Amino acid sequence: MRNFTFRNPVRIIFGKGTIAKLGPEAARSGRRALLVYGRESIKKNGVYDKVALSLSESGVTVVEHPGVRPNPVLSHAREGVRKALDSACDIVIAAGGGSSIDEAKAIAAGAAYRGDLWDLFSGKAAVKEALPIFTVLTLPATGSEMNQGCVITNDETRQKFSTASPSLFPRVSILDPETTLTLPAAQTANGAVDALAHLSEGYFTTSDRDATVTDEVVHALARSVIAATERILSDPRDYGARASMMWSATLSLNGLQSLGYGGISFPSHAIEHSLSALYDIAHGAGLSVIMPAWFKYHLEHDGPERLEKFGKAVFGTGNAEGTIGALEEWFRRIGSPVRLSEAGVPASDIPRISGNAMGLIKLWGMDYDRAAVEDILGRAV
Amino acid sequence: MRNFTFRNPVRIIFGKGTIAKLGPEAARSGRRALLVYGRESIKKNGVYDKVALSLSESGVTVVEHPGVRPNPVLSHAREGVRKALDSACDIVIAAGGGSSIDEAKAIAAGAAYRGDLWDLFSGKAAVKEALPIFTVLTLPATGSEMNQGCVITNDETRQKFSTASPSLFPRVSILDPETTLTLPAAQTANGAVDALAHLSEGYFTTSDRDATVTDEVVHALARSVIAATERILSDPRDYGARASMMWSATLSLNGLQSLGYGGISFPSHAIEHSLSALYDIAHGAGLSVIMPAWFKYHLEHDGPERLEKFGKAVFGTGNAEGTIGALEEWFRRIGSPVRLSEAGVPASDIPRISGNAMGLIKLWGMDYDRAAVEDILGRAV
Repeated sequence: MRNFTFRNPVRIIFGKGTIAKLGPEAARSGRRALLVYGRESIKKNGVYDKVALSLSESGVTVVEHPGVRPNPVLSHAREGVRKALDSACDIVIAAGGGSSIDEAKAIAAGAAYRGDLWDLFSGKAAVKEALPIFTVLTLPATGSEMNQGCVITNDETRQKFSTASPSLFPRVSILDPETTLTLPAAQTANGAVDALAHLSEGYFTTSDRDATVTDEVVHALARSVIAATERILSDPRDYGARASMMWSATLSLNGLQSLGYGGISFPSHAIEHSLSALYDIAHGAGLSVIMPAWFKYHLEHDGPERLEKFGKAVFGTGNAEGTIGALEEWFRRIGSPVRLSEAGVPASDIPRISGNAMGLIKLWGMDYDRAAVEDILGRAV
Repeated sequence: MRNFTFRNPVRIIFGKGTIAKLGPEAARSGRRALLVYGRESIKKNGVYDKVALSLSESGVTVVEHPGVRPNPVLSHAREGVRKALDSACDIVIAAGGGSSIDEAKAIAAGAAYRGDLWDLFSGKAAVKEALPIFTVLTLPATGSEMNQGCVITNDETRQKFSTASPSLFPRVSILDPETTLTLPAAQTANGAVDALAHLSEGYFTTSDRDATVTDEVVHALARSVIAATERILSDPRDYGARASMMWSATLSLNGLQSLGYGGISFPSHAIEHSLSALYDIAHGAGLSVIMPAWFKYHLEHDGPERLEKFGKAVFGTGNAEGTIGALEEWFRRIGSPVRLSEAGVPASDIPRISGNAMGLIKLWGMDYDRAAVEDILGRAV
């Protein structure tokens, strides 16, 4: 087990009817909120009204910033920064999934930074401070509601990059599983794939084979994500399953899932970001294409040990190939693509994708050259 | 899954050589520390010297408060409060196991409270503030290094009571598994039993049968504690096993282990506290006597469901009786007592123990009358 430091100060308010607690929590940090959200879904499912009522009752005024896209883009985040500054917002609130939360984080950081917002993602500058961030989660997937990271796509350069800072931990995140009862099957599946990717990136890239307690935690959460997904797909209004999925996805990227692993990397994410950036496909759908391909590459280069351990604990499989097969089969069963063609990406685009991916791979300091990326992508054909 | 709120802001610094980071961390909060510790062990194993050096290099002066007992007592904590006030200490540092940490927490709260220290444990007053607390953990067991609780025994009234407050979260806890390489087998076993008790109290007293993600986390940590203990008993100097035990025990009572369970209670702890208070036996040894007895009572009153689920996931057993048997057998194997007589407590003392236990049971608002407590104790004869 390698040395680590861990601190996660996010206050989680979890359960039915908890959105009413947003106002009192937000009012401790500010009086004027930039409210960041996507399109119509939070108006249809009643979340918007509950958020607005709670803030208004607590005397917090709202400046609206709707229109966040599923892969949130820099230009829209820049608009948000301008609004926040022009209206002297002192807090930023996200209502939605990981996209709204990530854009809210970018805006919160950008409002406290004098330079260009992209500097904070391109590696030119670090996030040192941010406006206080609050979130109301409506789509379990990214874990952003309880971590210090965020991802933004530069819509000019087609780069999907990330940043991280302790100042990007939300002050409070409200997780009401009832907000997810109407989520379509495709979004449920995307969230499940993303959570499994978060659990597996550290597990499969660590060189430490003796962080056994973290291995156990990863297995536990992976089993929980899979079991919850299956219950939801058979009964979308199963509150217990929605609740289990919501908390499992949050725990899958709040830091606990990689403690003691030492230096890890995010190869499936690094390559998938290019699929999202170039084709605007859902992050989860991109991941279910890349993960099995990366696992095949991993098996060839790093051996069967981790795949065997993971598969035995999570799928009850007996060998590495069986684990990859079980994962592909499970992705298929929940309706998520496992080949580039199934995601609408032609194999002839592999050079274009690998070219794009090298940007993030270099920025993250990962040990993959372009041939390796093309090798992995080739396994997804 | 029931509604919950969760926030745990403790900074964990984990691994080899990390005690050197204490001074810089402590110096952010204060310049004069009350250093709370037990007897000779931290001087023998080098922890004391490392702590003293790190604090001195960071310009933090130390007021010594040695002599904490394994079940820390009120009179000694009161002495600590006087020392802290007389010397104008602005932080409290514990170096040791849960006893030193709990007494340090009591002192930190007492130094910020104008009334009598016992008020904060007897239910007369709540802890509202405390001096900043830092810990250097040398015995994985209680989880106090990453939670907001502490337990003190009133040596006049023989009451072992607890208190809790967000101000009792340590600012920073340093967990260096190397400090545990020389722990005797008995203390290793006590710690393992305590961690398993922390995991099982919520799991077995919740009335929620659908907090499945938390069930998975509990199973994962229980398996991890058991596996680490067995490795340590066969090779006490196995760093990986010591590290796994240390982090598993911390996670076993940092809040995660009961999220979504709703109202839970700590019956094994409530009864065991009387064994520690009356006979000064180790908390872990008392728990390994009470837990199987309570499980038998639980099986009769609440049915086999939870015991079956826990046993299947942790021991591979097939039914509730098998789970209790496996647990007893495992406690015996690690050298921990499973009957009152094995802990040196005569069965004729049951009325005395139950009388003492009713104090804590009432204070914690638990639904057990004296006959029930005697029924449970009778199963430990």
